[in-house]
Amino acid sequence: MSETKILASYVTASRLEDIPDDVRHEARRAIVNYVGCAVGGSPHPAVDIAIRALGPYSGTPAASILGRAERLDPLHASLMNGISSHVYDYDDTTPKNYSHPTSPVGSALFSYASANPVRGRDFMLAFILGFEAESRVANAVYPAHYDVGWHITGTSGVFGAAAAVGRLLGLSVQEMVWAIGLAATQAAGLREMFGSMAKAFHPGRSAQNGYVAALLAKEGFTAGEHGIEGPRGFAAVQAATYDLSKITTRLGVDFDLRENTYKPFPCGIVNHPTIDGCIHLHDEHRPPPDTIRAVRLRVAPLVMDLCNQQNITRGLQGKFSVYHGAANELDRGKAGIQEYTDEAVNDPHIKRVRESASFFGYPAIPEDQARIEVDLHDGRTLSKFVEQSLGNLARPLSDRQLDDKFRDQAVLALPAADVESLIRLCWRIDELDEVNELVTAAVPAAARVIPASRRA
Amino acid sequence: MSETKILASYVTASRLEDIPDDVRHEARRAIVNYVGCAVGGSPHPAVDIAIRALGPYSGTPAASILGRAERLDPLHASLMNGISSHVYDYDDTTPKNYSHPTSPVGSALFSYASANPVRGRDFMLAFILGFEAESRVANAVYPAHYDVGWHITGTSGVFGAAAAVGRLLGLSVQEMVWAIGLAATQAAGLREMFGSMAKAFHPGRSAQNGYVAALLAKEGFTAGEHGIEGPRGFAAVQAATYDLSKITTRLGVDFDLRENTYKPFPCGIVNHPTIDGCIHLHDEHRPPPDTIRAVRLRVAPLVMDLCNQQNITRGLQGKFSVYHGAANELDRGKAGIQEYTDEAVNDPHIKRVRESASFFGYPAIPEDQARIEVDLHDGRTLSKFVEQSLGNLARPLSDRQLDDKFRDQAVLALPAADVESLIRLCWRIDELDEVNELVTAAVPAAARVIPASRRA
Repeated sequence: MSETKILASYVTASRLEDIPDDVRHEARRAIVNYVGCAVGGSPHPAVDIAIRALGPYSGTPAASILGRAERLDPLHASLMNGISSHVYDYDDTTPKNYSHPTSPVGSALFSYASANPVRGRDFMLAFILGFEAESRVANAVYPAHYDVGWHITGTSGVFGAAAAVGRLLGLSVQEMVWAIGLAATQAAGLREMFGSMAKAFHPGRSAQNGYVAALLAKEGFTAGEHGIEGPRGFAAVQAATYDLSKITTRLGVDFDLRENTYKPFPCGIVNHPTIDGCIHLHDEHRPPPDTIRAVRLRVAPLVMDLCNQQNITRGLQGKFSVYHGAANELDRGKAGIQEYTDEAVNDPHIKRVRESASFFGYPAIPEDQARIEVDLHDGRTLSKFVEQSLGNLARPLSDRQLDDKFRDQAVLALPAADVESLIRLCWRIDELDEVNELVTAAVPAAARVIPASRRA
Repeated sequence: MSETKILASYVTASRLEDIPDDVRHEARRAIVNYVGCAVGGSPHPAVDIAIRALGPYSGTPAASILGRAERLDPLHASLMNGISSHVYDYDDTTPKNYSHPTSPVGSALFSYASANPVRGRDFMLAFILGFEAESRVANAVYPAHYDVGWHITGTSGVFGAAAAVGRLLGLSVQEMVWAIGLAATQAAGLREMFGSMAKAFHPGRSAQNGYVAALLAKEGFTAGEHGIEGPRGFAAVQAATYDLSKITTRLGVDFDLRENTYKPFPCGIVNHPTIDGCIHLHDEHRPPPDTIRAVRLRVAPLVMDLCNQQNITRGLQGKFSVYHGAANELDRGKAGIQEYTDEAVNDPHIKRVRESASFFGYPAIPEDQARIEVDLHDGRTLSKFVEQSLGNLARPLSDRQLDDKFRDQAVLALPAADVESLIRLCWRIDELDEVNELVTAAVPAAARVIPASRRA
């Protein structure tokens, strides 16, 4: 059987009872992290602009956007959820393929569940299956696919969204094969967009496109039967080398959710060891910016590839500047959303330290390590070696730290008391009779709509 | 200046006065051919299904779909126009890059012009600029991009739609650069989908995605500044080799519209020489199917790559089966839309002849030539060499033949008298005060909506 068909069969047939408890708990953690990011990112100008540009084209406003008062049709709401949840580069990461997996799947599912009655346990199953589908497709083409310049979050995410929504729509195996084909043929997103709003457009559009793929397939819109493995399919066209066995091996036994990580800092994950180390140096020495003569960073080569932007003026660029990460942390000792604004990037103190920084990529340094040396004008050198960066698989954020991260973000859009009840709802999502209860709690009080099915 | 910026500057600044008369006439021919295809394809089940699946998500139904009674928001109408105009594989082709250029641009523009007042001359200028933009982007990456498996109609088409709609929206150069970036990062469509409805989804989605790109850019949604030429941009990621000078060289002087061709047969263009030759053999000898022992085709190697499907059951597959093309023409002597239905593909006479056919690709044979030999049971061999296939640049369809092609298709959706007036409107599109007059004439009478601006 083809990989596409094996995956389609698995996604259509799997039951929640087949999912181990630890995987379900990791799904809850991913959802907590996701909802915090989506609500926290929802006031971002990129979301304002997208709603202003595309809202006039929305259909019946049947779905809420997490964190926002506006309602749109579920396809457009998927797009907006995807933009908001990724725009601060604060969402989750699977280090084995560098995708940010929850945004595409969660954005489509929460939009679907806002417009349709969905039980919590069905939502959780669809989420887990969508996550596994996209992550396995990503594994099959990583690293060649990523290295050439694809933003794998978008290109693999569309498969996850199609699988997840397709599962809730009750697609047959044949329909799921078509949905996967329609996902494959919409797989897009270029790394050239990093540092602009278009980066966050990728998971949003992949959520929306996957949702569209599932809707079309449900009505019988046909696609190629071999969207993933065919000679002109996703893998062959979008990766110089690939391994399709990664899609099917131990499917339903091994779960990539177990290898998901949650960022402590809202920026490109390869910057995290540097930031972690600079926060340590700040807390230990608190060097005033004008005492710093030079900063030297020894990091993994991928940092050079992704985050080599020194001369920057916009907050979004700061997320992909290891120089900014180092300078900011040495000065402020903190890396939250406020440290990646235009204001922070243009802060003259930070700018001066940023311009004093240099870095070198060493193939021997793994991506979760960094060595930092700071030369002071008084002749001293401060140094720090980070062996495991906070948030990676060996030092995961605790459930409690995820709550803190949620609060820090969500208060940008919701009152603190509402944030607490929303956090509680996220942790027990699989117990909810209707996931719309959670979606409703995630929008400003004045915008809460009681679904028709619940009205007296 | 970067290629993206040069293209953006050209598209925003060019004037209709700068476009030579012969190019304008070729634009009219492309539009006549397009509208006929869109109206003729509009009753196809792929369009029915897409409207059934996505219609419930449509916004305010401000736009007509060519040939259909339903109205949708302009973004969804773009998608439907794109599906209908390409679903019979009967639309235009630029042989230098094998894209079908009018469908993405025309589908977005007619939808825009249905929902917004657009003068005919502005429409024509936007069409020509969108066509040139997409065709030049396609030239830059062809053939490597196409050979690896991209459906270049979709991947380049999104640039054309973004440029054309962006021009009508009056984007600044910066906004057009972002629109091009947002197009680049949505460039998708796999040749693996050939033979399914998803193939026609490609130009539709590229029309819709390009339109979205222009709307977002207009409101200030940022994208990478180097969507085409950047190190992780469209060309570098989606083509093993490319030549960016093809985008900018003699821009505004040479026009790819002059190298556009119109298909006489609704199927993969590389089958056309074989079909042309078999029609000749049919007309000359009228061999009954049971007298045919074997059919041998000597064709260009690309035919082998694209059209090597012998064991087929669906009309859509027939379009990419050189065996079907040969068998059908030997039997029926005609290749219209009715020769690519499921019924035709399953006709036992045609099936038997199809199964007797073999073909060989010869690198020495150009793509517009074919040599056909038919062995009869009585020992005779009929043969025909096609040196220039009807419809290619050396033997273009005349304006009159385009009218005939239009009629043959459009009568599937509209009364014959309405078809005649629609043809006349297409030929004088650039003289219209409002292009919506044409769009209105292209839908069933009962569905015609008088725009608010025209109401008494």
